[in-house]
Amino acid sequence: MKRYKLLIEYDGTNLHGWQTQPGVACVQSEIEEALSVLVGERPNVVGSGRTDAGVHARGQVAHFCLPKGVDSWKLRGALNGLLPRSIRIIEVEEVSGDFHARYSAIRRTYEYRVSLQPRALDAGLRWLLKREPNFTAMNEAAERLVGQHDFSAFCRARSETRNRVCEVVEAVWHAEDREGDWLFRIAANRFLHGMVRTIVGTLMDVGYGKLTPADVDTILASRDRRRAGQAAPAHGLVLQEVTYPAHD
Amino acid sequence: MKRYKLLIEYDGTNLHGWQTQPGVACVQSEIEEALSVLVGERPNVVGSGRTDAGVHARGQVAHFCLPKGVDSWKLRGALNGLLPRSIRIIEVEEVSGDFHARYSAIRRTYEYRVSLQPRALDAGLRWLLKREPNFTAMNEAAERLVGQHDFSAFCRARSETRNRVCEVVEAVWHAEDREGDWLFRIAANRFLHGMVRTIVGTLMDVGYGKLTPADVDTILASRDRRRAGQAAPAHGLVLQEVTYPAHD
Repeated sequence: MKRYKLLIEYDGTNLHGWQTQPGVACVQSEIEEALSVLVGERPNVVGSGRTDAGVHARGQVAHFCLPKGVDSWKLRGALNGLLPRSIRIIEVEEVSGDFHARYSAIRRTYEYRVSLQPRALDAGLRWLLKREPNFTAMNEAAERLVGQHDFSAFCRARSETRNRVCEVVEAVWHAEDREGDWLFRIAANRFLHGMVRTIVGTLMDVGYGKLTPADVDTILASRDRRRAGQAAPAHGLVLQEVTYPAHD
Repeated sequence: MKRYKLLIEYDGTNLHGWQTQPGVACVQSEIEEALSVLVGERPNVVGSGRTDAGVHARGQVAHFCLPKGVDSWKLRGALNGLLPRSIRIIEVEEVSGDFHARYSAIRRTYEYRVSLQPRALDAGLRWLLKREPNFTAMNEAAERLVGQHDFSAFCRARSETRNRVCEVVEAVWHAEDREGDWLFRIAANRFLHGMVRTIVGTLMDVGYGKLTPADVDTILASRDRRRAGQAAPAHGLVLQEVTYPAHD
Protein backbone atom coordinates (compact mmCIF):
# COMPACT_ATOMS: atom_id res chain seq x y z
CA MET A 1 0.00 0.00 0.00
CA LYS A 2 1.12 3.55 -0.76
CA ARG A 3 -0.01 6.50 1.34
CA TYR A 4 -0.64 10.02 -0.01
CA LYS A 5 -1.03 13.35 1.75
CA LEU A 6 -3.23 16.07 0.22
CA LEU A 7 -3.03 19.82 0.83
CA ILE A 8 -6.48 21.20 0.06
CA GLU A 9 -8.00 24.67 -0.38
CA TYR A 10 -11.78 25.13 -0.46
CA ASP A 11 -14.40 27.83 -0.62
CA GLY A 12 -16.99 26.56 1.84
CA THR A 13 -19.77 28.91 0.69
CA ASN A 14 -21.75 26.22 -1.11
CA LEU A 15 -20.29 23.17 0.62
CA HIS A 16 -21.79 21.25 3.52
CA GLY A 17 -18.53 21.06 5.41
CA TRP A 18 -15.73 18.52 5.36
CA GLN A 19 -17.43 15.35 6.49
CA THR A 20 -19.48 13.25 4.08
CA GLN A 21 -23.23 13.47 4.57
CA PRO A 22 -25.72 11.79 2.24
CA GLY A 23 -27.16 13.82 -0.63
CA VAL A 24 -25.14 17.05 -0.23
CA ALA A 25 -21.77 18.30 -1.52
CA CYS A 26 -19.07 17.77 1.12
CA VAL A 27 -15.32 18.08 0.64
CA GLN A 28 -14.51 14.54 1.78
CA SER A 29 -17.08 12.86 -0.49
CA GLU A 30 -16.19 15.06 -3.50
CA ILE A 31 -12.53 14.02 -3.21
CA GLU A 32 -13.40 10.35 -2.63
CA GLU A 33 -15.70 10.46 -5.68
CA ALA A 34 -12.97 12.00 -7.87
CA LEU A 35 -10.41 9.42 -6.65
CA SER A 36 -12.80 6.56 -7.39
CA VAL A 37 -13.10 7.77 -11.01
CA LEU A 38 -9.30 7.86 -11.32
CA VAL A 39 -8.21 4.70 -9.52
CA GLY A 40 -11.29 2.50 -9.86
CA GLU A 41 -11.94 2.14 -6.15
CA ARG A 42 -13.11 4.53 -3.47
CA PRO A 43 -10.41 5.05 -0.82
CA ASN A 44 -11.33 6.51 2.57
CA VAL A 45 -10.02 10.10 2.69
CA VAL A 46 -9.09 11.00 6.28
CA GLY A 47 -9.00 14.73 7.11
CA SER A 48 -7.02 16.52 9.83
CA GLY A 49 -10.39 17.44 11.32
CA ARG A 50 -13.90 18.46 10.30
CA THR A 51 -14.91 21.91 9.23
CA ASP A 52 -18.57 22.98 9.46
CA ALA A 53 -20.82 23.91 6.55
CA GLY A 54 -19.77 27.31 5.16
CA VAL A 55 -16.28 27.27 6.70
CA HIS A 56 -13.36 27.70 4.26
CA ALA A 57 -9.85 26.20 4.18
CA ARG A 58 -6.55 27.34 2.75
CA GLY A 59 -4.57 24.51 4.34
CA GLN A 60 -6.73 21.46 5.08
CA VAL A 61 -4.71 18.23 5.09
CA ALA A 62 -5.95 14.70 4.39
CA HIS A 63 -4.50 11.28 3.64
CA PHE A 64 -5.60 8.13 1.81
CA CYS A 65 -4.06 4.83 0.72
CA LEU A 66 -3.83 3.17 -2.68
CA PRO A 67 -2.72 -0.39 -3.48
CA LYS A 68 -0.34 0.83 -6.22
CA GLY A 69 1.89 3.90 -6.54
CA VAL A 70 0.81 6.82 -8.76
CA ASP A 71 2.58 9.96 -10.02
CA SER A 72 1.79 12.70 -7.46
CA TRP A 73 1.95 15.58 -9.94
CA LYS A 74 -0.36 13.88 -12.44
CA LEU A 75 -2.77 12.86 -9.68
CA ARG A 76 -3.02 16.51 -8.58
CA GLY A 77 -3.83 17.63 -12.13
CA ALA A 78 -6.38 14.87 -12.68
CA LEU A 79 -8.12 15.51 -9.32
CA ASN A 80 -8.39 19.25 -10.06
CA GLY A 81 -9.82 18.38 -13.46
CA LEU A 82 -12.61 16.36 -11.85
CA LEU A 83 -13.34 18.36 -8.68
CA PRO A 84 -15.69 21.38 -8.56
CA ARG A 85 -13.85 24.72 -8.75
CA SER A 86 -14.63 25.41 -5.08
CA ILE A 87 -12.18 22.62 -4.11
CA ARG A 88 -8.55 22.70 -5.29
CA ILE A 89 -5.78 20.23 -4.52
CA ILE A 90 -2.65 22.34 -3.94
CA GLU A 91 -0.27 19.44 -3.38
CA VAL A 92 -0.16 15.65 -3.48
CA GLU A 93 2.77 14.01 -1.69
CA GLU A 94 3.63 10.38 -1.04
CA VAL A 95 4.18 9.89 2.71
CA SER A 96 5.32 7.07 4.96
CA GLY A 97 2.81 4.52 6.23
CA ASP A 98 2.74 6.00 9.73
CA PHE A 99 1.56 9.45 8.63
CA HIS A 100 -2.00 10.18 9.78
CA ALA A 101 -3.67 13.49 8.79
CA ARG A 102 -5.53 13.67 12.10
CA TYR A 103 -3.39 11.90 14.69
CA SER A 104 0.02 13.11 13.46
CA ALA A 105 -1.06 16.78 13.48
CA ILE A 106 0.49 18.81 16.30
CA ARG A 107 -1.12 22.19 15.63
CA ARG A 108 -4.09 23.72 13.80
CA THR A 109 -4.27 27.43 12.91
CA TYR A 110 -7.54 29.18 12.10
CA GLU A 111 -8.18 32.74 10.91
CA TYR A 112 -11.41 34.67 11.35
CA ARG A 113 -12.00 37.89 9.37
CA VAL A 114 -14.35 40.76 10.11
CA SER A 115 -14.88 44.10 8.41
CA LEU A 116 -16.37 47.43 9.42
CA GLN A 117 -16.84 48.32 5.74
CA PRO A 118 -19.08 46.59 3.23
CA ARG A 119 -16.89 44.63 0.79
CA ALA A 120 -17.54 43.55 -2.81
CA LEU A 121 -14.39 41.49 -3.32
CA ASP A 122 -14.13 39.24 -0.28
CA ALA A 123 -17.58 39.63 1.23
CA GLY A 124 -17.87 35.82 1.35
CA LEU A 125 -14.83 35.66 3.67
CA ARG A 126 -15.70 38.32 6.26
CA TRP A 127 -18.29 38.96 8.92
CA LEU A 128 -19.58 42.51 8.30
CA LEU A 129 -19.90 44.31 11.66
CA LYS A 130 -22.44 47.10 12.14
CA ARG A 131 -20.23 49.12 14.48
CA GLU A 132 -16.66 49.07 15.72
CA PRO A 133 -15.96 46.84 18.72
CA ASN A 134 -13.17 47.59 21.19
CA PHE A 135 -10.35 45.44 19.78
CA THR A 136 -8.04 46.31 22.69
CA ALA A 137 -10.50 44.78 25.16
CA MET A 138 -10.97 41.81 22.82
CA ASN A 139 -7.22 41.18 22.82
CA GLU A 140 -7.11 41.38 26.62
CA ALA A 141 -9.85 38.75 26.67
CA ALA A 142 -8.16 36.62 23.99
CA GLU A 143 -4.91 36.52 26.01
CA ARG A 144 -6.79 34.77 28.80
CA LEU A 145 -7.53 31.85 26.45
CA VAL A 146 -3.85 31.17 25.80
CA GLY A 147 -2.52 28.12 27.66
CA GLN A 148 -3.95 24.74 28.61
CA HIS A 149 -7.62 24.90 29.61
CA ASP A 150 -10.80 22.83 29.62
CA PHE A 151 -12.77 24.48 26.79
CA SER A 152 -16.15 22.80 27.52
CA ALA A 153 -17.80 26.25 27.72
CA PHE A 154 -16.76 26.85 24.09
CA CYS A 155 -17.73 23.42 22.74
CA ARG A 156 -21.02 22.66 20.98
CA ALA A 157 -23.35 21.20 23.64
CA ARG A 158 -24.19 18.02 21.70
CA SER A 159 -20.55 17.18 20.98
CA GLU A 160 -19.56 13.68 22.08
CA THR A 161 -15.90 14.53 22.59
CA ARG A 162 -14.91 13.57 26.14
CA ASN A 163 -11.52 15.22 26.45
CA ARG A 164 -12.18 18.96 26.39
CA VAL A 165 -8.66 20.11 27.24
CA CYS A 166 -6.88 22.12 24.52
CA GLU A 167 -3.66 24.07 24.55
CA VAL A 168 -4.06 27.42 22.81
CA VAL A 169 -0.67 28.85 21.75
CA GLU A 170 -1.83 32.03 19.97
CA ALA A 171 -5.05 34.09 20.04
CA VAL A 172 -4.82 37.66 18.78
CA TRP A 173 -6.66 40.27 16.70
CA HIS A 174 -4.62 42.23 14.12
CA ALA A 175 -5.64 45.23 12.01
CA GLU A 176 -5.16 44.36 8.34
CA ASP A 177 -3.82 46.59 5.54
CA ARG A 178 -7.23 47.93 4.54
CA GLU A 179 -8.93 50.33 6.93
CA GLY A 180 -11.79 48.55 8.67
CA ASP A 181 -10.49 45.00 8.10
CA TRP A 182 -9.48 42.91 11.14
CA LEU A 183 -8.18 39.37 11.44
CA PHE A 184 -8.28 37.00 14.43
CA ARG A 185 -5.63 34.29 14.41
CA ILE A 186 -5.87 31.36 16.79
CA ALA A 187 -3.64 28.28 17.01
CA ALA A 188 -3.91 25.25 19.29
CA ASN A 189 -2.90 21.60 19.46
CA ARG A 190 -6.58 20.73 18.88
CA PHE A 191 -9.99 22.41 18.67
CA LEU A 192 -13.42 21.23 19.83
CA HIS A 193 -16.61 21.30 17.77
CA GLY A 194 -17.67 24.92 17.13
CA MET A 195 -14.85 26.23 19.36
CA VAL A 196 -13.35 28.98 17.16
CA ARG A 197 -16.72 30.48 16.22
CA THR A 198 -17.89 30.44 19.85
CA ILE A 199 -14.64 32.12 20.94
CA VAL A 200 -15.07 34.81 18.25
CA GLY A 201 -18.71 35.39 19.29
CA THR A 202 -17.69 35.66 22.97
CA LEU A 203 -14.84 38.07 22.17
CA MET A 204 -17.36 40.21 20.24
CA ASP A 205 -19.48 40.38 23.42
CA VAL A 206 -16.36 41.74 25.12
CA GLY A 207 -15.78 44.18 22.25
CA TYR A 208 -19.31 45.54 22.57
CA GLY A 209 -19.12 45.80 26.38
CA LYS A 210 -21.57 42.99 27.21
CA LEU A 211 -18.72 41.10 28.91
CA THR A 212 -15.42 42.22 30.48
CA PRO A 213 -12.09 40.55 29.61
CA ALA A 214 -12.07 39.03 33.11
CA ASP A 215 -15.44 37.35 32.44
CA VAL A 216 -13.60 35.01 30.06
CA ASP A 217 -11.88 33.37 33.05
CA THR A 218 -15.26 32.80 34.73
CA ILE A 219 -16.75 31.37 31.53
CA LEU A 220 -13.78 28.99 31.07
CA ALA A 221 -14.03 27.85 34.71
CA SER A 222 -17.80 27.24 34.44
CA ARG A 223 -17.37 24.63 31.63
CA ASP A 224 -20.94 25.63 30.74
CA ARG A 225 -21.68 26.35 27.06
CA ARG A 226 -24.60 28.59 28.04
CA ARG A 227 -22.19 31.09 29.62
CA ALA A 228 -20.22 31.76 26.41
CA GLY A 229 -21.46 33.95 23.53
CA GLN A 230 -23.24 33.01 20.32
CA ALA A 231 -21.20 31.34 17.59
CA ALA A 232 -19.98 33.85 14.96
CA PRO A 233 -21.09 33.19 11.34
CA ALA A 234 -19.30 30.33 9.51
CA HIS A 235 -18.28 32.33 6.44
CA GLY A 236 -15.66 34.43 8.31
CA LEU A 237 -13.66 31.31 9.29
CA VAL A 238 -10.73 29.74 7.42
CA LEU A 239 -8.69 26.67 8.41
CA GLN A 240 -5.35 28.22 7.57
CA GLU A 241 -2.75 25.60 8.41
CA VAL A 242 -2.25 22.16 9.92
CA THR A 243 1.23 21.53 11.29
CA TYR A 244 3.03 18.16 11.50
CA PRO A 245 6.37 17.22 13.10
CA ALA A 246 9.26 18.17 10.80
CA HIS A 247 10.25 14.57 9.99
CA ASP A 248 6.87 13.90 8.30
CA MET B 1 -25.41 72.46 -6.08
CA LYS B 2 -23.65 70.04 -3.74
CA ARG B 3 -20.88 67.75 -4.91
CA TYR B 4 -20.21 64.25 -3.55
CA LYS B 5 -17.22 61.94 -3.85
CA LEU B 6 -17.72 58.17 -3.81
CA LEU B 7 -15.14 55.51 -2.87
CA ILE B 8 -16.25 52.32 -4.62
CA GLU B 9 -15.27 48.65 -4.47
CA TYR B 10 -16.47 46.21 -7.13
CA ASP B 11 -16.08 42.62 -8.21
CA GLY B 12 -15.85 42.96 -11.98
CA THR B 13 -16.45 39.25 -12.71
CA ASN B 14 -20.00 39.75 -13.97
CA LEU B 15 -19.82 43.47 -14.80
CA HIS B 16 -19.19 45.02 -18.21
CA GLY B 17 -16.68 47.51 -16.88
CA TRP B 18 -17.06 51.02 -15.49
CA GLN B 19 -18.56 52.91 -18.40
CA THR B 20 -22.26 52.73 -19.20
CA GLN B 21 -23.15 50.66 -22.26
CA PRO B 22 -26.74 49.94 -23.28
CA GLY B 23 -28.32 46.70 -22.10
CA VAL B 24 -25.55 45.37 -19.82
CA ALA B 25 -24.63 45.85 -16.14
CA CYS B 26 -21.90 48.52 -15.79
CA VAL B 27 -20.72 50.14 -12.58
CA GLN B 28 -21.49 53.71 -13.69
CA SER B 29 -25.05 52.95 -14.83
CA GLU B 30 -25.81 50.81 -11.76
CA ILE B 31 -24.82 53.70 -9.46
CA GLU B 32 -26.70 56.29 -11.56
CA GLU B 33 -29.77 54.03 -11.50
CA ALA B 34 -29.60 53.65 -7.70
CA LEU B 35 -29.14 57.42 -7.24
CA SER B 36 -32.11 58.15 -9.49
CA VAL B 37 -34.32 55.96 -7.27
CA LEU B 38 -33.12 57.85 -4.18
CA VAL B 39 -33.08 61.46 -5.35
CA GLY B 40 -35.65 61.42 -8.15
CA GLU B 41 -33.28 62.47 -10.91
CA ARG B 42 -30.37 60.77 -12.61
CA PRO B 43 -27.10 62.62 -11.97
CA ASN B 44 -24.08 61.98 -14.17
CA VAL B 45 -21.57 59.92 -12.17
CA VAL B 46 -18.01 60.78 -13.27
CA GLY B 47 -15.33 58.14 -12.57
CA SER B 48 -11.57 58.64 -12.12
CA GLY B 49 -11.17 56.52 -15.24
CA ARG B 50 -12.69 53.54 -17.01
CA THR B 51 -12.01 49.95 -16.10
CA ASP B 52 -12.58 47.19 -18.66
CA ALA B 53 -15.10 44.36 -18.41
CA GLY B 54 -13.94 41.86 -15.79
CA VAL B 55 -11.51 44.24 -14.04
CA HIS B 56 -12.05 44.76 -10.30
CA ALA B 57 -11.67 47.82 -8.05
CA ARG B 58 -10.91 48.28 -4.38
CA GLY B 59 -10.53 52.06 -4.64
CA GLN B 60 -12.40 53.48 -7.64
CA VAL B 61 -13.40 57.13 -7.08
CA ALA B 62 -16.28 59.01 -8.69
CA HIS B 63 -18.17 62.28 -8.19
CA PHE B 64 -21.66 63.59 -8.92
CA CYS B 65 -23.72 66.68 -8.12
CA LEU B 66 -27.10 67.08 -6.47
CA PRO B 67 -29.23 70.25 -6.24
CA LYS B 68 -29.79 69.76 -2.49
CA GLY B 69 -27.55 68.45 0.31
CA VAL B 70 -28.05 64.92 1.68
CA ASP B 71 -26.66 63.05 4.69
CA SER B 72 -23.53 61.24 3.42
CA TRP B 73 -23.79 58.31 5.86
CA LYS B 74 -27.45 57.66 5.05
CA LEU B 75 -26.79 57.97 1.32
CA ARG B 76 -24.08 55.30 1.60
CA GLY B 77 -26.44 52.92 3.38
CA ALA B 78 -29.29 53.53 0.92
CA LEU B 79 -27.03 53.08 -2.14
CA ASN B 80 -25.66 49.80 -0.78
CA GLY B 81 -29.24 48.69 -0.14
CA LEU B 82 -30.12 49.25 -3.81
CA LEU B 83 -26.90 48.22 -5.58
CA PRO B 84 -26.03 44.61 -6.53
CA ARG B 85 -23.68 42.94 -4.02
CA SER B 86 -20.84 43.05 -6.54
CA ILE B 87 -20.72 46.86 -6.08
CA ARG B 88 -20.25 48.42 -2.62
CA ILE B 89 -20.00 52.09 -1.72
CA ILE B 90 -17.27 52.29 0.94
CA GLU B 91 -17.54 56.03 1.57
CA VAL B 92 -19.64 59.05 0.56
CA GLU B 93 -18.08 62.45 1.22
CA GLU B 94 -19.25 65.97 0.41
CA VAL B 95 -16.46 67.78 -1.50
CA SER B 96 -15.87 71.29 -2.81
CA GLY B 97 -17.21 72.32 -6.22
CA ASP B 98 -13.79 72.17 -7.87
CA PHE B 99 -13.16 68.47 -7.07
CA HIS B 100 -13.21 66.32 -10.21
CA ALA B 101 -12.78 62.53 -9.90
CA ARG B 102 -10.86 62.35 -13.18
CA TYR B 103 -9.07 65.69 -13.59
CA SER B 104 -8.10 66.21 -9.94
CA ALA B 105 -6.49 62.75 -9.65
CA ILE B 106 -2.69 62.85 -9.49
CA ARG B 107 -1.96 59.12 -9.30
CA ARG B 108 -3.59 55.77 -10.02
CA THR B 109 -2.34 52.48 -8.52
CA TYR B 110 -3.20 49.09 -9.99
CA GLU B 111 -2.41 45.60 -8.70
CA TYR B 112 -2.21 42.46 -10.84
CA ARG B 113 -2.18 39.03 -9.17
CA VAL B 114 -0.93 35.72 -10.50
CA SER B 115 -0.61 32.31 -8.91
CA LEU B 116 1.42 29.21 -9.63
CA GLN B 117 -1.04 27.14 -7.57
CA PRO B 118 -4.70 26.54 -8.35
CA ARG B 119 -6.82 28.51 -5.86
CA ALA B 120 -10.34 27.93 -4.59
CA LEU B 121 -10.70 31.11 -2.52
CA ASP B 122 -9.53 33.92 -4.77
CA ALA B 123 -9.44 32.19 -8.14
CA GLY B 124 -11.52 35.07 -9.55
CA LEU B 125 -8.74 37.54 -8.66
CA ARG B 126 -5.66 35.76 -10.02
CA TRP B 127 -4.25 34.64 -13.33
CA LEU B 128 -3.26 30.98 -12.89
CA LEU B 129 0.13 30.38 -14.53
CA LYS B 130 1.07 26.96 -15.89
CA ARG B 131 4.76 27.28 -14.98
CA GLU B 132 6.97 29.65 -13.00
CA PRO B 133 8.28 32.67 -14.91
CA ASN B 134 11.59 34.35 -14.01
CA PHE B 135 10.39 37.13 -11.70
CA THR B 136 13.90 38.57 -11.39
CA ALA B 137 14.05 39.18 -15.15
CA MET B 138 10.49 40.56 -15.03
CA ASN B 139 11.52 43.07 -12.37
CA GLU B 140 14.54 44.12 -14.44
CA ALA B 141 12.16 44.72 -17.35
CA ALA B 142 9.59 46.51 -15.14
CA GLU B 143 12.26 48.95 -13.89
CA ARG B 144 12.73 50.14 -17.47
CA LEU B 145 9.10 51.32 -17.53
CA VAL B 146 9.59 53.66 -14.57
CA GLY B 147 9.84 57.32 -15.57
CA GLN B 148 8.18 59.48 -18.20
CA HIS B 149 7.69 57.66 -21.54
CA ASP B 150 5.41 57.57 -24.55
CA PHE B 151 3.44 54.37 -23.90
CA SER B 152 1.84 54.07 -27.38
CA ALA B 153 3.24 50.53 -27.70
CA PHE B 154 1.21 49.52 -24.62
CA CYS B 155 -2.02 51.29 -25.61
CA ARG B 156 -4.96 49.57 -27.30
CA ALA B 157 -4.62 50.24 -31.06
CA ARG B 158 -8.12 51.68 -31.50
CA SER B 159 -7.77 54.11 -28.58
CA GLU B 160 -8.47 57.73 -29.53
CA THR B 161 -6.27 59.21 -26.80
CA ARG B 162 -3.74 61.57 -28.41
CA ASN B 163 -1.38 62.20 -25.52
CA ARG B 164 0.36 58.89 -24.87
CA VAL B 165 2.92 60.16 -22.36
CA CYS B 166 2.60 58.73 -18.84
CA GLU B 167 4.88 58.95 -15.83
CA VAL B 168 5.22 55.57 -14.11
CA VAL B 169 6.44 55.97 -10.52
CA GLU B 170 6.38 52.32 -9.40
CA ALA B 171 6.37 48.98 -11.25
CA VAL B 172 7.44 45.93 -9.26
CA TRP B 173 6.62 42.26 -8.66
CA HIS B 174 6.46 41.05 -5.03
CA ALA B 175 6.11 37.51 -3.68
CA GLU B 176 3.04 37.35 -1.45
CA ASP B 177 2.61 35.50 1.85
CA ARG B 178 1.34 32.30 0.26
CA GLU B 179 3.81 30.20 -1.68
CA GLY B 180 3.16 30.58 -5.40
CA ASP B 181 1.25 33.89 -5.15
CA TRP B 182 2.80 36.98 -6.78
CA LEU B 183 1.58 40.56 -7.04
CA PHE B 184 2.55 43.26 -9.56
CA ARG B 185 2.03 46.82 -8.36
CA ILE B 186 2.14 49.71 -10.82
CA ALA B 187 1.46 53.40 -10.18
CA ALA B 188 1.45 56.32 -12.63
CA ASN B 189 -0.03 59.78 -13.06
CA ARG B 190 -2.29 58.29 -15.75
CA PHE B 191 -2.80 55.07 -17.71
CA LEU B 192 -3.83 54.48 -21.31
CA HIS B 193 -6.50 52.07 -22.52
CA GLY B 194 -5.40 48.46 -21.87
CA MET B 195 -1.99 49.63 -20.63
CA VAL B 196 -1.62 47.64 -17.40
CA ARG B 197 -2.75 44.34 -18.95
CA THR B 198 -0.44 44.83 -21.95
CA ILE B 199 2.47 45.61 -19.63
CA VAL B 200 1.75 42.45 -17.58
CA GLY B 201 1.52 40.35 -20.76
CA THR B 202 4.82 41.79 -22.02
CA LEU B 203 6.55 41.19 -18.69
CA MET B 204 5.33 37.56 -18.83
CA ASP B 205 7.04 37.23 -22.22
CA VAL B 206 10.23 38.36 -20.46
CA GLY B 207 9.57 35.92 -17.60
CA TYR B 208 9.27 33.02 -20.06
CA GLY B 209 12.35 34.07 -22.06
CA LYS B 210 10.56 35.20 -25.24
CA LEU B 211 11.88 38.73 -24.63
CA THR B 212 14.86 40.11 -22.71
CA PRO B 213 14.53 42.95 -20.19
CA ALA B 214 16.35 45.22 -22.67
CA ASP B 215 13.70 44.51 -25.35
CA VAL B 216 11.31 46.63 -23.26
CA ASP B 217 13.32 49.76 -24.20
CA THR B 218 13.04 48.87 -27.90
CA ILE B 219 9.29 48.23 -27.60
CA LEU B 220 8.74 51.56 -25.79
CA ALA B 221 10.77 53.43 -28.44
CA SER B 222 8.85 51.76 -31.30
CA ARG B 223 5.49 53.20 -30.14
CA ASP B 224 4.05 50.22 -32.00
CA ARG B 225 1.37 48.14 -30.22
CA ARG B 226 2.28 45.09 -32.33
CA ARG B 227 5.71 44.93 -30.67
CA ALA B 228 4.37 44.51 -27.12
CA GLY B 229 2.94 41.24 -25.72
CA GLN B 230 -0.65 40.04 -25.48
CA ALA B 231 -2.87 41.65 -22.86
CA ALA B 232 -3.06 39.57 -19.66
CA PRO B 233 -6.56 38.39 -18.59
CA ALA B 234 -8.83 41.04 -17.03
CA HIS B 235 -9.71 39.10 -13.88
CA GLY B 236 -6.19 39.46 -12.35
CA LEU B 237 -6.41 43.26 -12.36
CA VAL B 238 -7.61 45.52 -9.52
CA LEU B 239 -7.77 49.34 -9.49
CA GLN B 240 -6.35 49.67 -6.00
CA GLU B 241 -6.18 53.39 -5.30
CA VAL B 242 -6.71 56.82 -6.85
CA THR B 243 -4.74 59.63 -5.21
CA TYR B 244 -5.74 63.31 -4.99
CA PRO B 245 -3.83 66.32 -3.68
CA ALA B 246 -3.99 66.45 0.13
CA HIS B 247 -6.22 69.56 0.25
CA ASP B 248 -9.12 67.77 -1.51
